[in-house]
Amino acid sequence: MINAGIVGGTGYTGVELLRILVQHPKVKLKVITSRQEAGTGVDELFSSLRGQIALKFSDPAKVDFSKCDVVFFATPNGIAMQQAKALLDSGIKVIDLAADFRIKDVAEWEKWYGMTHAAPELVAEAVYGLPEVNREKIRDARLIANPGCYPTAVQLGFIPLIEAGAVDADHLIADTKSGVSGAGRKAEIHTLYAEASDNFKSYAVPGHRHLPEIRQGLSERSNGPIGLTFVPHLTPMIRGIHATLYARLTRDVDLQTLYENRYANEPFVDVLPAGSHPETRSVRGSNFCRIAVHRPGNGDTAVILSVTDNLVKGAAGQAVQNMNIMYGLPETTGIRHVPLLP
Amino acid sequence: MINAGIVGGTGYTGVELLRILVQHPKVKLKVITSRQEAGTGVDELFSSLRGQIALKFSDPAKVDFSKCDVVFFATPNGIAMQQAKALLDSGIKVIDLAADFRIKDVAEWEKWYGMTHAAPELVAEAVYGLPEVNREKIRDARLIANPGCYPTAVQLGFIPLIEAGAVDADHLIADTKSGVSGAGRKAEIHTLYAEASDNFKSYAVPGHRHLPEIRQGLSERSNGPIGLTFVPHLTPMIRGIHATLYARLTRDVDLQTLYENRYANEPFVDVLPAGSHPETRSVRGSNFCRIAVHRPGNGDTAVILSVTDNLVKGAAGQAVQNMNIMYGLPETTGIRHVPLLP
Amino acid sequence: MINAGIVGGTGYTGVELLRILVQHPKVKLKVITSRQEAGTGVDELFSSLRGQIALKFSDPAKVDFSKCDVVFFATPNGIAMQQAKALLDSGIKVIDLAADFRIKDVAEWEKWYGMTHAAPELVAEAVYGLPEVNREKIRDARLIANPGCYPTAVQLGFIPLIEAGAVDADHLIADTKSGVSGAGRKAEIHTLYAEASDNFKSYAVPGHRHLPEIRQGLSERSNGPIGLTFVPHLTPMIRGIHATLYARLTRDVDLQTLYENRYANEPFVDVLPAGSHPETRSVRGSNFCRIAVHRPGNGDTAVILSVTDNLVKGAAGQAVQNMNIMYGLPETTGIRHVPLLP
Amino acid sequence: MINAGIVGGTGYTGVELLRILVQHPKVKLKVITSRQEAGTGVDELFSSLRGQIALKFSDPAKVDFSKCDVVFFATPNGIAMQQAKALLDSGIKVIDLAADFRIKDVAEWEKWYGMTHAAPELVAEAVYGLPEVNREKIRDARLIANPGCYPTAVQLGFIPLIEAGAVDADHLIADTKSGVSGAGRKAEIHTLYAEASDNFKSYAVPGHRHLPEIRQGLSERSNGPIGLTFVPHLTPMIRGIHATLYARLTRDVDLQTLYENRYANEPFVDVLPAGSHPETRSVRGSNFCRIAVHRPGNGDTAVILSVTDNLVKGAAGQAVQNMNIMYGLPETTGIRHVPLLP
Repeated sequence: MINAGIVGGTGYTGVELLRILVQHPKVKLKVITSRQEAGTGVDELFSSLRGQIALKFSDPAKVDFSKCDVVFFATPNGIAMQQAKALLDSGIKVIDLAADFRIKDVAEWEKWYGMTHAAPELVAEAVYGLPEVNREKIRDARLIANPGCYPTAVQLGFIPLIEAGAVDADHLIADTKSGVSGAGRKAEIHTLYAEASDNFKSYAVPGHRHLPEIRQGLSERSNGPIGLTFVPHLTPMIRGIHATLYARLTRDVDLQTLYENRYANEPFVDVLPAGSHPETRSVRGSNFCRIAVHRPGNGDTAVILSVTDNLVKGAAGQAVQNMNIMYGLPETTGIRHVPLLP
Repeated sequence: MINAGIVGGTGYTGVELLRILVQHPKVKLKVITSRQEAGTGVDELFSSLRGQIALKFSDPAKVDFSKCDVVFFATPNGIAMQQAKALLDSGIKVIDLAADFRIKDVAEWEKWYGMTHAAPELVAEAVYGLPEVNREKIRDARLIANPGCYPTAVQLGFIPLIEAGAVDADHLIADTKSGVSGAGRKAEIHTLYAEASDNFKSYAVPGHRHLPEIRQGLSERSNGPIGLTFVPHLTPMIRGIHATLYARLTRDVDLQTLYENRYANEPFVDVLPAGSHPETRSVRGSNFCRIAVHRPGNGDTAVILSVTDNLVKGAAGQAVQNMNIMYGLPETTGIRHVPLLP
Repeated sequence: MINAGIVGGTGYTGVELLRILVQHPKVKLKVITSRQEAGTGVDELFSSLRGQIALKFSDPAKVDFSKCDVVFFATPNGIAMQQAKALLDSGIKVIDLAADFRIKDVAEWEKWYGMTHAAPELVAEAVYGLPEVNREKIRDARLIANPGCYPTAVQLGFIPLIEAGAVDADHLIADTKSGVSGAGRKAEIHTLYAEASDNFKSYAVPGHRHLPEIRQGLSERSNGPIGLTFVPHLTPMIRGIHATLYARLTRDVDLQTLYENRYANEPFVDVLPAGSHPETRSVRGSNFCRIAVHRPGNGDTAVILSVTDNLVKGAAGQAVQNMNIMYGLPETTGIRHVPLLP
Repeated sequence: MINAGIVGGTGYTGVELLRILVQHPKVKLKVITSRQEAGTGVDELFSSLRGQIALKFSDPAKVDFSKCDVVFFATPNGIAMQQAKALLDSGIKVIDLAADFRIKDVAEWEKWYGMTHAAPELVAEAVYGLPEVNREKIRDARLIANPGCYPTAVQLGFIPLIEAGAVDADHLIADTKSGVSGAGRKAEIHTLYAEASDNFKSYAVPGHRHLPEIRQGLSERSNGPIGLTFVPHLTPMIRGIHATLYARLTRDVDLQTLYENRYANEPFVDVLPAGSHPETRSVRGSNFCRIAVHRPGNGDTAVILSVTDNLVKGAAGQAVQNMNIMYGLPETTGIRHVPLLP
């Protein structure tokens, strides 16, 4: 059994991590912290977990992780970078679901995240936890930078084309749509029901923090520079990301075969039959990414459609997938949930 | 392993049954029928099931259930009553998720359902599959009448009060609210997104088919006559039933203790702490019924709040719970899904 | 032209008041205040008002209402009671959309609202602005207590039965459902999209502030005591209230005729044909209250269904209706908007 | 007064046309037809119109339009082309909200719409009713082809760039998102609440009927060929279109000034301040199109955001705007509704 701890379990990635871990056959959850909810039973805050968990939230100032093998950070950005070193020094592995270790260029990170990095020396060591790219490195990692929700859906969608060198990688377009849970469980006006329901809008068009993360990831798969226009939108649904990706083909390529081959052995990437239109609900509550590829009018523009559940493959599920790999478990252990439809 | 068949697997109770059974450790799904979709792969119709199931829908006219131990009917009303006898005669058990065998008074059934009953002789044999009431009978049953969605939530809410003889059972009120999936996967205008979204309405106030079913169930627990005003409403959500129940207390009673005691050993009925307000999402995708009890202003009106997922405890999950009991499996086998929140 | 001011125009009742007043042919909006948004253009905060209004929010500390004939308070509870006297003394009429002047019993008000009343002497003078009951008093009023959203829908539903003395008024039940805008434009977790969407729950079952308001209103129409069980629910829709009302009939009465007669001359109360089920969307964006009456199974329980738009007839529209009456305008002036459907 | 008739008033564009026309100060609605609902009161079908309209639906086989000045077709495609000639010959003007007269190339139309055109001789005469482009021609037209919902939002978004010759017009991308009302009031499974809610998907990526319409419209504004990748998506909201448009700039251009100048005199096109993100709800129920322009990272990709209400500026509102122009009324008469927010 893997003894696990969670720092900051009161947000949506936290409760999703709890949902997965309480059902995981090889994990024992030992401790979970929350400054605000210290002393509250986890199932008092989240009634969906009644009968599933007996833990109370611990005060982070007094918590003892010494019985943990691995600690997940489901915290806002800027927390894991302060605490990771001590844990790693104690032999505890760390999986950060926030952004602290995702960007290798620390100056770039500091620009986008607006703070000074507290552990730049760990950034180089951290492994970017996208198993479809970094499976071998993850196996031996102590510190995982779990990818962002948009970056997971967008990278999995673009990677086969980029690796094949078949597109103008300097003019990629990612038009992405996210459910509102992606904004987190924070009291804010713009994500109120009466604001976000029956409404659709873009946001952060001039620049979004996931842009440098995607650019970095795609650059590593490419021979040339990556140029990306990234436009996120808020959609009135709870979970789900739909990425609609556009790229100019530089040579003739059989998209369907390219994608099927690339992901043939991936347990969580599902390339749909030719002509398909993936729906976000087809992955709701599951760790799958489903992808369809199109070439409208047989022209030179490839259209790639990629859907994930932002809280699972885009956060907690992928974190557990990384944990499984790190501990030599079958990769799908505990994350084989069938999507909830309707 | 239990070999199972499904008749009519293209509706919402059908796909939910599929979701549960493909993950059930003791069930092998052998056959599923659909007139309209015969020949289509199940995962072509429901992309959420890609990778989970290799079956195609079979033509009901040509289907062979001889390798099945149990057959579920996830059909419209009026189908199971035509086919159950032949299956039972072959030694195959039948669980009907529709209404064909729920009402013991055949004339009453025919009045509410507008058709002649094709197998009145089986009605008496059929066991009403509400485990919290009929567990022992279910164990030995060949034919289960799986309760309706509203009747499950309403009966579980009223039963402790009725059994205790503590209310005026002749003037019960059940104000119920259902998600739209309760109307089924049928092409109809009134359940279109643009009709049902951002809207709330009652329906069938003069009389709903679930009224006689609830009345029958409560009468069996009562010493006197049952009078019930039953008002269903359509709520803009996919899954979930919220029953708000009102009863006039005829004597002083500690509601909290009464309910906790009644359901102390029930794995799927969860009595919330005093003062609680259950949310439908706290049971989304799960077989739980969560109940809270109130007595506003310490007056003589009891207010009982009962929530279920209409497709799980209100349909497919309860059907599998019944199957587990019939086959001597631990009752929670394969239906321990943790609710999906958010 | 009536010169109008608004105190606190950044909430949902505020923006709805703006929508109505900018289209009102007899009103000139002179000033609107907001502490937080002072200096911001109204149409910067609410892009729906671009091109409709040139005002900026004024700092309430510096605002001058001397050019106003009437001032609307679209503020949280507890503001109008501090400022009304000075305005009235200057000859400016006041319409409070909050609760400060709704409850005649000041001690009762202080108990439910948790603060000391700042202007108890004005409470007696204030006219409760439900035109269907108080039209004549409203005509001459200086100070209007605009009714709450639930109280409007519930009272309009119960009044004909109460006035007719045809029910057991000591055991009324109001099972009410509100859209999320009723909770206001405040940053809170429980009304986030990811919390309130695809979910249904009750709240405040032990006691809600609108209970004493409804009780007071019904008592004034009744010969005997009023006993009310009031259970509000939160529904995943933006606007709309659906009140499902239950009362035990004490004598035989033709409900349909009773209601049609009572509201025959009311421009905003629409009694639907027998057998109807009103939908909240049928009043969306409009000042109508639509009511249907039922007597299931011809028994002794009356079921009254009453729907309103909580922001219009339940708040801003009714406030303008009151203003029209106060200034001798045709009562429907500027509030004849046809509901938006779908 | 303009005497108006409507053919086919039971769909969403029909009921929206009704909502607008019953409030229009210069229109008298004389007749409305529906095969299925002949004899039914309009306000029986649409309770939102109770008290607004006394008409019943007429049988189209028996209807007499001789008292009408103008007839709107709110029908499925293929109806107006059969009936327009007789009306025009009687001196009645025709505004077709369907697609029959939108595409000048009849063979192209027949390919996309899968039927033989019944009145090719009228296609040349018909004026494409996009006032921002064809105002002068509309003034004198007898027959208006009212633009599609996507084409309105997309063309208004691209036109300034195309007219300026500032982009690579052969590689335009329109990533569009529509509310579900765009699919019409038809009983179909894929637009059921339980299918379309909490879900997001693309559709018709290989080719959508609005593609040739947009291409034709943009070609007329361009010096060179138009190449367009058009990807529509279904969004869980009732009304609204959000078009996210991408174009490669071929020269440096001040987007903000370009758009503000182009639409300076347009009453219904609102160019938002630099840096804005338009929301669909900011135009809900109104005839506005709001546009924002971006150039992320100051690169060579222009991102244009354009929102409309698909039932108003995308259908019924634009039809009435065209009627106003045809009859010499102020263009905004009867369509100045302020958007409903929230």
